[in-house]
Order: sequence, then C-alpha cells, then structure tokens
Amino acid sequence: MDPDAVVKAFVDHYYATFDNNRAELAGLYRDCSMLTFEGQKIQGGQNITAKLTSLPFATCKHQISTLDCQPSAGGVLVFVSGALQVNDEKHLLRFSQVIPFGLFCMLSFASFHLMPVETGIFYVQNDIFRLIYV
Amino acid sequence: MDPDAVVKAFVDHYYATFDNNRAELAGLYRDCSMLTFEGQKIQGGQNITAKLTSLPFATCKHQISTLDCQPSAGGVLVFVSGALQVNDEKHLLRFSQVIPFGLFCMLSFASFHLMPVETGIFYVQNDIFRLIYV
Repeated sequence: MDPDAVVKAFVDHYYATFDNNRAELAGLYRDCSMLTFEGQKIQGGQNITAKLTSLPFATCKHQISTLDCQPSAGGVLVFVSGALQVNDEKHLLRFSQVIPFGLFCMLSFASFHLMPVETGIFYVQNDIFRLIYV
Repeated sequence: MDPDAVVKAFVDHYYATFDNNRAELAGLYRDCSMLTFEGQKIQGGQNITAKLTSLPFATCKHQISTLDCQPSAGGVLVFVSGALQVNDEKHLLRFSQVIPFGLFCMLSFASFHLMPVETGIFYVQNDIFRLIYV
C-alpha cells in the first residue's frame, strides 16, 4: 500500500474524529504518547485526551493546507499545516477565528502482537501543536 | 545537560549557519538524511546541501517564534515556527518578504563509535520545511 495514502487516510481520520467526536481520539494515543500543545507538555493517552476534550470551544473544523510525511525510525513522520475554525463563527470577526496552525505527529506502527494479521495501523507517539501567528 | 538547552543550541547553530554560510550545513546532514522542501523530496546530505545552497536569494534571516522538542525513537523531535526575511528587503514590500514558516526536524544522535568521548552531537535525520500561507 502506498505509504502516502496510508498517512493521508490516517490524517483524514484523525481530523474527522477531532472535529466530530474528540473523545474518540483516545484510540489514537497510547500510554507512551506525548503531546506538546502550545508549549504545554502532556504525557500519556489519557491525559492527552483529557486536554483535547477540554479545549474551550464547542465546535471546530480543521482545514488542511499541506501534508508531508517521511519514513523515520520505524514509523512515519508527518507535518500538517492548515487553518482552524472554531465555534462556527459567521460574523465579521470569523476570519480572526481561522487560525493558521502547524501540527507535527510522529506516527509509529502499533504493536500487533495481539492482532498479528493486521498491518498499517498507527498510533500517535509524538504530537506537537502550535498556532502560527503572523 | 538539559535536553531543551542542547536542542536550542543546535537550532541556533543551524540557523546561524543557514543565514551566514549555507554551504556549511553539509556538516549537519548525513547520507541517510531526508528533506522535504515545499513538497519536494530530497534524499542524502549532498543533495540536500545542493538544494539549500541553490535557493534563489542572496541573503536570508530566520526569526524564530516557537521551538518545541520531544524525545523520540532514540533522538529528538523538533518543531520550529517563525519568519523568514530574504534579501534584506527594506522597502515597503518588505513585510511580504517576511514569511511565516514551519520547520520540523527529526534529530538523531550521531554515531559515536569513532569518537566515544563525545556526547550530545546531532545530525538532521528528517527535515520538513513548509512556508505557511494565511
């Protein structure tokens, strides 16, 4: 399978989950996962999910502009940039709600010793999120 | 030594080298290094250096806004965002020359089997560069 297609499918799934049901992101992190969110370091899938589900907006929508990936250390390195729209803002200030962001994820292959017939399943090992201010 | 301080020193060194003598970046990549520059994939330190030294501007200056790092797969994962000013533009359009960018480097410890007394020396294993358009 084309590695780029696998990563694109993962990223599409990640943001669809983020935008529609953040609590389900729990399935994409592990105890060993790390998130750095706007400079705040958070360790472990449970803490990461707690952080992401507590972000102070009711709705959000990620618009991906670029997606790059490279094989790295037995996993895949992914860099995503795009814009983030929160709370369905429709008034004139909505453009200030569309914020460029940079997201980096180090995706590692999940351990398959429990399900050896499956391949191409990922979890997020490292995750760095930053809003980009111009 | 504080890992964050080591990474900051490396990043400062990387951009000082980039802005003052791009050819010397060759010392920071290896044959196994990969660069994705604005979507173009380039393999190997020699090809990467050739690409970086051929970028079509006489001078450039990186202004770092954020720097994040995490330990990952025996190395360090680094995400830098900031602005890039090229050709010392001083006229009114200079602000259009200051371009937000996102850079991700996967830094791995260099092999020290030849110099076992040295520690904390890095090379760039993976490098993804993107200009961020608002």
